[in-house]
Amino acid sequence: MSKSVTGNFFEDFHPGQTFNHPTPRTVSQADQALYMALTGTRFALQSSDEFARAIGYPRAPLDDLLVFHLVFGKTVSDVSLNAVANLGYAACVFGAPVYPGDTLSASSRVIGLKETSSGKTGVVYVHSTGVNQRGETVLDYLRWVMVRKREPAAPAPDALVPDLPDAVEPERFHLPKDLNLAGYDFAAAGDGHRWDDYAVGERIDHLDGVTIEDAEHQMATRLYQNTARVHFDRHLARDGRFGRRIVYGGHIISLARALSFNGLANGFRVAAINGGRHVAPSFAGDTVYAWSEVTGKLEIAGRDDLGALRLRTLATKDRPCSDFPGADPADGNPSGQADPAVVLDLDYTVLMPRRGA
Amino acid sequence: MSKSVTGNFFEDFHPGQTFNHPTPRTVSQADQALYMALTGTRFALQSSDEFARAIGYPRAPLDDLLVFHLVFGKTVSDVSLNAVANLGYAACVFGAPVYPGDTLSASSRVIGLKETSSGKTGVVYVHSTGVNQRGETVLDYLRWVMVRKREPAAPAPDALVPDLPDAVEPERFHLPKDLNLAGYDFAAAGDGHRWDDYAVGERIDHLDGVTIEDAEHQMATRLYQNTARVHFDRHLARDGRFGRRIVYGGHIISLARALSFNGLANGFRVAAINGGRHVAPSFAGDTVYAWSEVTGKLEIAGRDDLGALRLRTLATKDRPCSDFPGADPADGNPSGQADPAVVLDLDYTVLMPRRGA
Amino acid sequence: MSKSVTGNFFEDFHPGQTFNHPTPRTVSQADQALYMALTGTRFALQSSDEFARAIGYPRAPLDDLLVFHLVFGKTVSDVSLNAVANLGYAACVFGAPVYPGDTLSASSRVIGLKETSSGKTGVVYVHSTGVNQRGETVLDYLRWVMVRKREPAAPAPDALVPDLPDAVEPERFHLPKDLNLAGYDFAAAGDGHRWDDYAVGERIDHLDGVTIEDAEHQMATRLYQNTARVHFDRHLARDGRFGRRIVYGGHIISLARALSFNGLANGFRVAAINGGRHVAPSFAGDTVYAWSEVTGKLEIAGRDDLGALRLRTLATKDRPCSDFPGADPADGNPSGQADPAVVLDLDYTVLMPRRGA
Repeated sequence: MSKSVTGNFFEDFHPGQTFNHPTPRTVSQADQALYMALTGTRFALQSSDEFARAIGYPRAPLDDLLVFHLVFGKTVSDVSLNAVANLGYAACVFGAPVYPGDTLSASSRVIGLKETSSGKTGVVYVHSTGVNQRGETVLDYLRWVMVRKREPAAPAPDALVPDLPDAVEPERFHLPKDLNLAGYDFAAAGDGHRWDDYAVGERIDHLDGVTIEDAEHQMATRLYQNTARVHFDRHLARDGRFGRRIVYGGHIISLARALSFNGLANGFRVAAINGGRHVAPSFAGDTVYAWSEVTGKLEIAGRDDLGALRLRTLATKDRPCSDFPGADPADGNPSGQADPAVVLDLDYTVLMPRRGA
Repeated sequence: MSKSVTGNFFEDFHPGQTFNHPTPRTVSQADQALYMALTGTRFALQSSDEFARAIGYPRAPLDDLLVFHLVFGKTVSDVSLNAVANLGYAACVFGAPVYPGDTLSASSRVIGLKETSSGKTGVVYVHSTGVNQRGETVLDYLRWVMVRKREPAAPAPDALVPDLPDAVEPERFHLPKDLNLAGYDFAAAGDGHRWDDYAVGERIDHLDGVTIEDAEHQMATRLYQNTARVHFDRHLARDGRFGRRIVYGGHIISLARALSFNGLANGFRVAAINGGRHVAPSFAGDTVYAWSEVTGKLEIAGRDDLGALRLRTLATKDRPCSDFPGADPADGNPSGQADPAVVLDLDYTVLMPRRGA
Repeated sequence: MSKSVTGNFFEDFHPGQTFNHPTPRTVSQADQALYMALTGTRFALQSSDEFARAIGYPRAPLDDLLVFHLVFGKTVSDVSLNAVANLGYAACVFGAPVYPGDTLSASSRVIGLKETSSGKTGVVYVHSTGVNQRGETVLDYLRWVMVRKREPAAPAPDALVPDLPDAVEPERFHLPKDLNLAGYDFAAAGDGHRWDDYAVGERIDHLDGVTIEDAEHQMATRLYQNTARVHFDRHLARDGRFGRRIVYGGHIISLARALSFNGLANGFRVAAINGGRHVAPSFAGDTVYAWSEVTGKLEIAGRDDLGALRLRTLATKDRPCSDFPGADPADGNPSGQADPAVVLDLDYTVLMPRRGA
């Protein structure tokens, strides 16, 4: 039997099963620099040690979504090498900030299984966790993916569908212990708007567009040591559903977050991802645009220097967002997205300074 | 009113106005490594800590032009988001060397304004400065750009055109205080020629050519956090003047400098940019070549171990430079460049060891 | 005479001639991060400081092949700028591990010369060595290249062909002095197979494929400061033999090694390259696959915690390797490779933990 592996199929998973994923990874400023070069992110906290120290961090942490991708990437070889579709995320909490020199590891536990009606695939629910070298949690999330069965005739397991919370409550947000926004430099951050200045229902067109190249999404995805072959193998893709390589969905999330700087520059930290859906695949040559709606304003207990904004950010391809495509309430939910240009519908929460700071 | 910004238009500028640009940026060896990977630069000082220490630097500094791009990139969102054309640079002095760990910030002051005859645009002159976390100047330059008016009917301001010096005088050059070229390793640097070996009027074909890819110039430009959308948005560009993304002009300067290693390897430090013009735009797929002429030899007061060469470097696209295109005196100035292959005409000054070292 | 150089031609070489190559290079974690982003390598030792310390390294060393490319890149400007073909490698030993902060230099000595029958070219044999800032050897290898003559009429030198050993003997392998595989974490490494589990003659299809982009191989090759113009100049290449840029052969070696993780994840260190041949050129757009055969199992004197596997890894383009293309004994040697999809045939030796660990 060959020593190379083709990944787990639906019938290989069982509830309670735990995976300690390879490969641990020591991160550095190089990961952040490459992330900047590949996504264009410009948030001041992750860009400047001086800015970070002024608000109580020991130095600039890595971008939250870079941490997400590094952890997510490790889970692929065990969980989703035979995935047909990445169905969703929930309850994703960003924990201890990650600094250059930290070593990240990841593990996942199977928390649900449900065969699909076709009998050819099943949905696998996992609870994944990323930790640093001190065992502190840096990321914790639920994810569900549709995975192929090795044998369509294999019997279906008992269906087990976990509770998937709609949102991460503020009590679960991680705040660095010395966080103090009195030193927040709004000029350096590039925007004078505070949490107080945003209203629920407010919509922001992030204006800019960015075109994806194959070399870029491949480099990003390899940086995260994510090995899903659909992102890398043009020869195989030619005979596939789309005829070409598919961009890692997380790269689209990162581009949308980077674009959101224009209008949300003070959302300095992603506290949580409440849910999200890759509405359609993206390919090299697509130009990504994004817009956001403020869907909630949350107070943080015991803090008058910062609050949280719950955001819905939609990304489109080859279509500017001045008229907020996909915003109609009738299609304003993950299952009924009507505008064909929409590729991402993300529900997440960011921290932002308040006037009290 | 939306919180996202479209940048300043000509009527938004007034003399004396100052911008403290976002986003501060802590640099690292990763910026230098990416710069090498994206431009192919090979100058020994910026490549080797050992080489740097042997001539009095504490370690290898970042490439001078990398510093230029990092500072320049910050100015874009305030100064040139609505630029029609980047008209010129002058009096650009490279200051304190920049090392991994330094945090760079930038500011600009408006020093001139002049509406153009069309009434639709105006020229904005700015004095921009980059500083490190100790407040030391790392870069100081004048730049003028043609910026669109928001309303063609807006009244013209009083014309104010600043003095634009032809060249940076040697007294303004910054020399690291412990600089001592006695330890300069010519073998390691890859070239045995000293300052003494070059003659005014001497021309050097740098021989090699390098083809630009979209992924490369986009990564470089994002690394500098330069957000000019013409470099990134293919969808928008399709309806534009050129039908495709334009390469950031600074990337061409970096490619020309990297190519100039072959013939000018001991020009270890860019001391100043006297002036320069992007004669024509460049696009992905173009192959860049370069040649240089020595236009001046400058002594440095009190130093017999180093001198300065004033250089004119021209870059072309899809045309080798063995016959020095654009060299004819009739077109040998920024306003009369005749060879259609020329894309860059740069006037700058480098430091080089003398025989006395 | 121009100060730019066109490289050495066959008649410029003579036995015993030594080159101290420019440019010394201080490496950092950025080189490793870029290498990961460009090749997809996932071996745990080079990815995690924690993993490395557990087996006696002070921290994660750089990838062995990254070190190979950094040293090789330096030799190009003196040895192979006018090469027609890169004929082979032998006796390549990986020495002291390379860590972030080390500065690498390279030198080469001419050990053989032989004019080819055409009279237009000759084979140059060099012994190249890479050292760190303490003078410790990090890489030592023999290489032979076919180089153009400047003047076909130039007289042929006396033929001198050095001894080219078939394999590197285990006594020459470099083991870090504190290496102790008792702490080897197989779960973190992603594979439970030990040296004991592999058999001579065993074949492994590495399954995955990866498509090469021009931006990727250009960035990799520039990171190594390798200036061979065939990799960078599309304008020149249009009139060449292949009509387009050729991928640096070392990039294919790195892709094949990265792909080999799937089936050989515990081959944590490349101890030696016994020989190798770039069977055919690769170009952007090619999708690279690989398979390996275990050609030898070597014990390491005095060690029961590790052994060595001699491997033959073949890489193909646009052709999966489930049927082991090029495996037929009749074409199983560098001079008789029959399958037209094969681009690389590499004979090398890796270290792997034994059950005794």
